[in-house]
Amino acid sequence: MEAISDLDGFFEPRAVAVIGASSRPGKIGHESLRSLIMTGYSGKIYPVNPKAEEILNLRAYPSILDVPGEVDLAVITLPAPVVPEAMRQCARKGVKAVVIISGGFGEAGPQGKELEDEVVRIARENGIRIIGPNCIGVFDGYSRVDTSFQPHERMGRPGPGPAAFLSQSGTFGATFLDWAAEDSLGVSKMTSLGNRADVDEADIIGYLADDERTKVIGVYIESFTRGRELLNSIRNCGKPVVVYKASKTEKGATAAVSHTGRMVARHEVATAALRQAGALIVDSFGELYAAVKALAKQHPAVGGSVMVTNGAGPCVMAADELSLRKVPLAKLSEDSKERLRSNLPPYALVGDFVLDLTGSASAEDYLKAIKILADLDEREVGLIGVFIVFQDSPLEDDFAEMLANFDSKGKPMLVFAAGGRYTREKRRIIEAAGIPTYDDVREYSAAAMALHWWGSRIG
Amino acid sequence: MEAISDLDGFFEPRAVAVIGASSRPGKIGHESLRSLIMTGYSGKIYPVNPKAEEILNLRAYPSILDVPGEVDLAVITLPAPVVPEAMRQCARKGVKAVVIISGGFGEAGPQGKELEDEVVRIARENGIRIIGPNCIGVFDGYSRVDTSFQPHERMGRPGPGPAAFLSQSGTFGATFLDWAAEDSLGVSKMTSLGNRADVDEADIIGYLADDERTKVIGVYIESFTRGRELLNSIRNCGKPVVVYKASKTEKGATAAVSHTGRMVARHEVATAALRQAGALIVDSFGELYAAVKALAKQHPAVGGSVMVTNGAGPCVMAADELSLRKVPLAKLSEDSKERLRSNLPPYALVGDFVLDLTGSASAEDYLKAIKILADLDEREVGLIGVFIVFQDSPLEDDFAEMLANFDSKGKPMLVFAAGGRYTREKRRIIEAAGIPTYDDVREYSAAAMALHWWGSRIG
Repeated sequence: MEAISDLDGFFEPRAVAVIGASSRPGKIGHESLRSLIMTGYSGKIYPVNPKAEEILNLRAYPSILDVPGEVDLAVITLPAPVVPEAMRQCARKGVKAVVIISGGFGEAGPQGKELEDEVVRIARENGIRIIGPNCIGVFDGYSRVDTSFQPHERMGRPGPGPAAFLSQSGTFGATFLDWAAEDSLGVSKMTSLGNRADVDEADIIGYLADDERTKVIGVYIESFTRGRELLNSIRNCGKPVVVYKASKTEKGATAAVSHTGRMVARHEVATAALRQAGALIVDSFGELYAAVKALAKQHPAVGGSVMVTNGAGPCVMAADELSLRKVPLAKLSEDSKERLRSNLPPYALVGDFVLDLTGSASAEDYLKAIKILADLDEREVGLIGVFIVFQDSPLEDDFAEMLANFDSKGKPMLVFAAGGRYTREKRRIIEAAGIPTYDDVREYSAAAMALHWWGSRIG
Repeated sequence: MEAISDLDGFFEPRAVAVIGASSRPGKIGHESLRSLIMTGYSGKIYPVNPKAEEILNLRAYPSILDVPGEVDLAVITLPAPVVPEAMRQCARKGVKAVVIISGGFGEAGPQGKELEDEVVRIARENGIRIIGPNCIGVFDGYSRVDTSFQPHERMGRPGPGPAAFLSQSGTFGATFLDWAAEDSLGVSKMTSLGNRADVDEADIIGYLADDERTKVIGVYIESFTRGRELLNSIRNCGKPVVVYKASKTEKGATAAVSHTGRMVARHEVATAALRQAGALIVDSFGELYAAVKALAKQHPAVGGSVMVTNGAGPCVMAADELSLRKVPLAKLSEDSKERLRSNLPPYALVGDFVLDLTGSASAEDYLKAIKILADLDEREVGLIGVFIVFQDSPLEDDFAEMLANFDSKGKPMLVFAAGGRYTREKRRIIEAAGIPTYDDVREYSAAAMALHWWGSRIG
């Protein structure tokens, strides 16, 4: 078999070896192997463990050198001190892509840093690319490669789709996958970069720019490795790149140092540069997820936002948050207002950008209002925000299904609804139909901002 | 029976009439009645409807004047134009507390405003207090009075407890109850104030100040009615009052006008005055709920915050957010660090205020670390933040139960964990044990801020 190029080995390997594979459930070397199997990766899988004959019904090999076929990707879960030796064996085997899950490297102090440097040296000498160490590795929604050590019983796996996510933090990578699975958000590739001893954001963004399946890229980052290359990768990407940069304060930086072993560029300088390179900057991980979900599921917005609701409190908060993010709000024409008034019951309050159907609203009221708004020119109404109190009794129980089947003719829609289990069930029905839902107004506002931002970028 | 005083009629009525009670499920006049029954209110309930003999197995009366016994609280769900007549009948019946759920008053324009003025005039002339109109009314966790029209199938009802909430927005009132029920957050009283034609925040805060069951008060407000009285009520309250004031921008104010028919005081002036009166100001409804939950479930904090984790990304974000809110972070002494290091496995990274147990962490590691932190003087460690990636395989499945049973000897604890269904189940176990949990870092940070704020206020 022919060698495959550069980062393809991480996402579309034909064969994967797990070095440090374990028979013991709970062990990282067991669970990463199990994820590959359970997520549905269909290439060859080779557990490597000198003490086992078979793990999870797969034949195990004493070392990667004993594996019969070629190996495109090695996943290393061994303790840090023995990783250099494993790397040397990978080199001899001709492996070109290695994910190092293990911690105990740069983040753990000077000794760990030495180990990390040694590992990188071996990689460079042998044309090997490394993701990690100190990460959960990669997930590919199409090839179903999945090196994470979070069991399926504890974390969902999303289906294939347009959203890519890269994260310096494995925790946020895991949360992203878990939330995406619940929200029917299709994912192309998730990359947990960890210490970024070799592969960094610039590499992955450059790779995703050419990945036809990726439509939007979300980035969680605390600090820069190669600043210039990162900015170039964003500048040349041609796809929406949304960034949440943590570690904006001195304390945040201190926390980050113990975590990834890197110092932090000044936050304002960094975010200004990212923005100038063309990234959208958001204010929290929740907003990052919210914006990526909106861009993945909906078209960009041209004209201003409107909100339709049966309970206006959250719309007041949203009007604030949208204003603060400079998201344009619609100003409905008198004609449009009259059309709305004459088609809706007398209790409906028609404002410039808020349609308050009040707590008396029925599903029919909502659908009439949304239909009129969807039919308006996209310059008058660019985005329809549907704010729903599902708890209110006048609203029919099957409104979620009706909304899920509504055809907005390409006009972007976002839904806000906050509550307990009943509300969550309704949201899931709507998410499954491709309409993003939110229960936090700031996250809703970040999502609207993202659609307006990308609409103005490509408009 | 003797007349009961002032606002008691809303929260501890001996008999409630629902004027506009309906036999039709889904109708507001049906559902408010049904809530009274299903939430467990044990006083007398009188449906009033001239066309029904019986509603929900209760004998119905043609008018409130036909009700045999005295009535402490009338709940009106009739269309706005007939509410003045209902008010006159309430006056003749000697009712002293009326909740008007109906909309169509001040928020709906000049005609509605006239109706509202008329209703208030009747009330004033007859010594009646009004909550509303245009609201969901009241919920009392102890007496189980519940006038909301959100069916139990769609919205949870919390048990009794120390948290009070008042809201200009009925929607946020409903969300509060729904979330509180899921989080085992005990609630004393929830009041949805709507148009605030009569009873306003100042009245309720004054009333709650004397309510022994209320330990913390959350307020969602868009605009002031009687500013001076509101500030005085906060100043004299003696209990933590947390406020989220929406309508901070011009657009927010515009949205608010269509919603409650009131103009908005300048936001900065208003929040500065609230702060000076002793309120804690937070930045979103989610933060408001988060802070109230923390103050209701945990003791106030004296010394700085620490965070223990098996995945540090969210701690970096939290260190930022805590710093921005001026929440003190701990600086562990060398002795304490040494004690932690010598009791924990080598992979544990011990920083000044972040203990990163890494993805390899076991439940035992967590409990050892938390125990040491709980034993430290409260000036060294005032609050323990437990950040958990429940998805990580090395963490035992029953860690949530173990944490729920852990005795921190009164030292406040907060938990952060973000994920899908598995994580939510684990969070619920911990919430039920009285430890607040969060899946949003800004909300976690607002909660920590609240505990530190109140700790310094009473310290």
